[in-house]
Amino acid sequence: MENPSYSKALIVGAGSGLSASLARLFAGRGIKVALAARSIEKLGALCTETGARAFACNATDPSGVERLFGLVEREIGTPDVVVYNASARARGPFLDLVPAEVEHAIAVSAFGGFLVAQQAAKRMLPHKHGAILFTGASASVKGYPQSAPFAMGKFALRGLAQSLSRELSPQGIHVAHFVIDGAIGRDESDSRLDPDEIARTYLNVFRQQRSAWSWEVELRPWVERF
Amino acid sequence: MENPSYSKALIVGAGSGLSASLARLFAGRGIKVALAARSIEKLGALCTETGARAFACNATDPSGVERLFGLVEREIGTPDVVVYNASARARGPFLDLVPAEVEHAIAVSAFGGFLVAQQAAKRMLPHKHGAILFTGASASVKGYPQSAPFAMGKFALRGLAQSLSRELSPQGIHVAHFVIDGAIGRDESDSRLDPDEIARTYLNVFRQQRSAWSWEVELRPWVERF
Amino acid sequence: MENPSYSKALIVGAGSGLSASLARLFAGRGIKVALAARSIEKLGALCTETGARAFACNATDPSGVERLFGLVEREIGTPDVVVYNASARARGPFLDLVPAEVEHAIAVSAFGGFLVAQQAAKRMLPHKHGAILFTGASASVKGYPQSAPFAMGKFALRGLAQSLSRELSPQGIHVAHFVIDGAIGRDESDSRLDPDEIARTYLNVFRQQRSAWSWEVELRPWVERF
Amino acid sequence: MENPSYSKALIVGAGSGLSASLARLFAGRGIKVALAARSIEKLGALCTETGARAFACNATDPSGVERLFGLVEREIGTPDVVVYNASARARGPFLDLVPAEVEHAIAVSAFGGFLVAQQAAKRMLPHKHGAILFTGASASVKGYPQSAPFAMGKFALRGLAQSLSRELSPQGIHVAHFVIDGAIGRDESDSRLDPDEIARTYLNVFRQQRSAWSWEVELRPWVERF
Repeated sequence: MENPSYSKALIVGAGSGLSASLARLFAGRGIKVALAARSIEKLGALCTETGARAFACNATDPSGVERLFGLVEREIGTPDVVVYNASARARGPFLDLVPAEVEHAIAVSAFGGFLVAQQAAKRMLPHKHGAILFTGASASVKGYPQSAPFAMGKFALRGLAQSLSRELSPQGIHVAHFVIDGAIGRDESDSRLDPDEIARTYLNVFRQQRSAWSWEVELRPWVERF
Repeated sequence: MENPSYSKALIVGAGSGLSASLARLFAGRGIKVALAARSIEKLGALCTETGARAFACNATDPSGVERLFGLVEREIGTPDVVVYNASARARGPFLDLVPAEVEHAIAVSAFGGFLVAQQAAKRMLPHKHGAILFTGASASVKGYPQSAPFAMGKFALRGLAQSLSRELSPQGIHVAHFVIDGAIGRDESDSRLDPDEIARTYLNVFRQQRSAWSWEVELRPWVERF
Repeated sequence: MENPSYSKALIVGAGSGLSASLARLFAGRGIKVALAARSIEKLGALCTETGARAFACNATDPSGVERLFGLVEREIGTPDVVVYNASARARGPFLDLVPAEVEHAIAVSAFGGFLVAQQAAKRMLPHKHGAILFTGASASVKGYPQSAPFAMGKFALRGLAQSLSRELSPQGIHVAHFVIDGAIGRDESDSRLDPDEIARTYLNVFRQQRSAWSWEVELRPWVERF
Repeated sequence: MENPSYSKALIVGAGSGLSASLARLFAGRGIKVALAARSIEKLGALCTETGARAFACNATDPSGVERLFGLVEREIGTPDVVVYNASARARGPFLDLVPAEVEHAIAVSAFGGFLVAQQAAKRMLPHKHGAILFTGASASVKGYPQSAPFAMGKFALRGLAQSLSRELSPQGIHVAHFVIDGAIGRDESDSRLDPDEIARTYLNVFRQQRSAWSWEVELRPWVERF
């Protein structure tokens, strides 16, 4: 079988970092792009540059996510690559954490991932084709002090991704989880993760042919201690 | 330093299995026990047997959990061992999962653990003494197909436990997470995890002296494939 | 089934630290102890104190290990607890490492563990009773810079332990691996792992009843960063 | 910084599977290839096809490995990509394993990797450029029953790779370890890992720009249970 080709991508949790790099890389490969974010006001320039369409969506709202997929389908067609890139955190000494903020962090980082993945899978399974990609962090595999809520959300997202990989891979859907282990940014010494480089690895992973799929890839700068 | 001694335990998520074994073992060692459960109707016999007090509490409700700790304090004193044992799951093919049930599974399995741990830590930190124990499952470290919500909740709880261990251990609080890898039950061939035996390991772990603490212990029957 | 009881222990890689604590704890519980070390000159006081017998043995020599078990059998009887505690390391910048020293480090840390485990299993399997315990280190699960040989030996020993656990557990042999994550020693602030406390956890683990066995336990001081 | 370019590759442990696919892919990208194997008799056709040079070498012999690098340097130049692909196993019930075969399995699977990596690093470090790649297996992260020797070798190789990644990455050398989780082969249903597809992922990984390096990537067929 040939390496799979993809034609429409939806990136949920779009902003100026990794998601923008993904949008540019996808567009450059002829993949139509839809971007979803809580607020889409700042996505104008990116849309102009990449031809992407932007959709406002609260990823933690089941009906909102369902509506999002309907709109995307109408505007660019059914996405065969879906990236869940949203997250929220709450930091500070454990006793200072506010329950409502913890709940929110888990909802955005993990429950939204469930909602998006479910809508994506619903549309991909009939075709036995598609890729669902999750953006993780150092906190996906390591619970840091003063950062329990982020660890909770990111661990949960990883659990979702692993379960989905086991369930959906044999049905033809490629599920992958990326552990972005370090700060994203650009500098001369490459001491942070250049988002264009991360995007390149996303692309290489979801273009893997099904005989040799990765479900998890970690990435970090050459100088990062791990 | 001597091995620490504990005098009051609170077990959240109490029923007939592991929690009952913990209550019996604790009571037998002279530790006063408080039990909390959504519904306490069935806890009567266990209370009679162990002298435990039972409290109704919805572990996912911040003010309910705060109230619970107030009541426990008044009735048996401030607990220095707190076990979070509650969980909920939603199973089935991924497309059949109901978002509200997924949200509930994450809330009971993980967010409740956060709420209980926070109230516990608040009372333990001034004394630099106490143990917070989390009951995990196979799904804490492995995401099974058709079981994403349970993996999400249990992975998140593990992230919480690991983060708390890193944050609270140097402040004198022993945080431990138990991976119960198999079905709990009793039979002649010991093919399931006898809850009395699990309880014994909980006790041995939280009685570890601080120079040699475990933060995670996994348990499975001798015949279990892993 | 009752918690298993053990009557004869063999500790390979005996010196003044953990092995001495194990010998004292075992002796105090009525378990007869045999100690094996490359050189047994310094074991005199410990033997006097605990009633243990000491045997000189090069753990990397197949016939030497076989002979050791023969001698132990004759002197104290067939051991039903065997601890592999030997290790060797080679440190320094990668380019400075000497191949022969690397080979030696792997042989002592891992191949000797194989030899000892095989002789132990040979004697335990007919009785479907016994425990084989392996002493690991931080390097068992994390490869540190400038320390590749120790990581190689300790990773390999962990692979051996995990494979043996899967193979021998269903045949009644408890196999356990301990990740000693920090420096062993004693001080007032408990900032190092007190070997008596580690020994206590070894004892608690191999006394687990077969319905709830741990195959791996990690231990670190309360103040250790991990 | 641009994505790095590589011009000379050495593949140690060359045969007809993954190594052949790597050789073909590298040659197709203009990378000169050297192949090393215990016996090079069967490498004739591959050499003809790819223009590769073949060298006989026992990877467990320090002076042999040093000699190999000297020859390769003379014939194709200093390699900036080095793949360690050799392994050996010994299988069967634990009591049936022959110590000499276990020793051999560890030597080929892990010690040879050390020797090759050291010679490679010696030549790469002055240029702060190069990639050292290790081929792992399911047994790198999971110790299977009746297969302790292979787990020992592959766990050890992973420990080496992780330690080297931490030590050499900040010096500009990309170290990566691949967990090939399944059988390699080709069939219509893609139920085995197509070696050409594995090779493609190797290439994508070592061409990562240094701001976003992976140190470990796992690969398995879409239908493989994990």
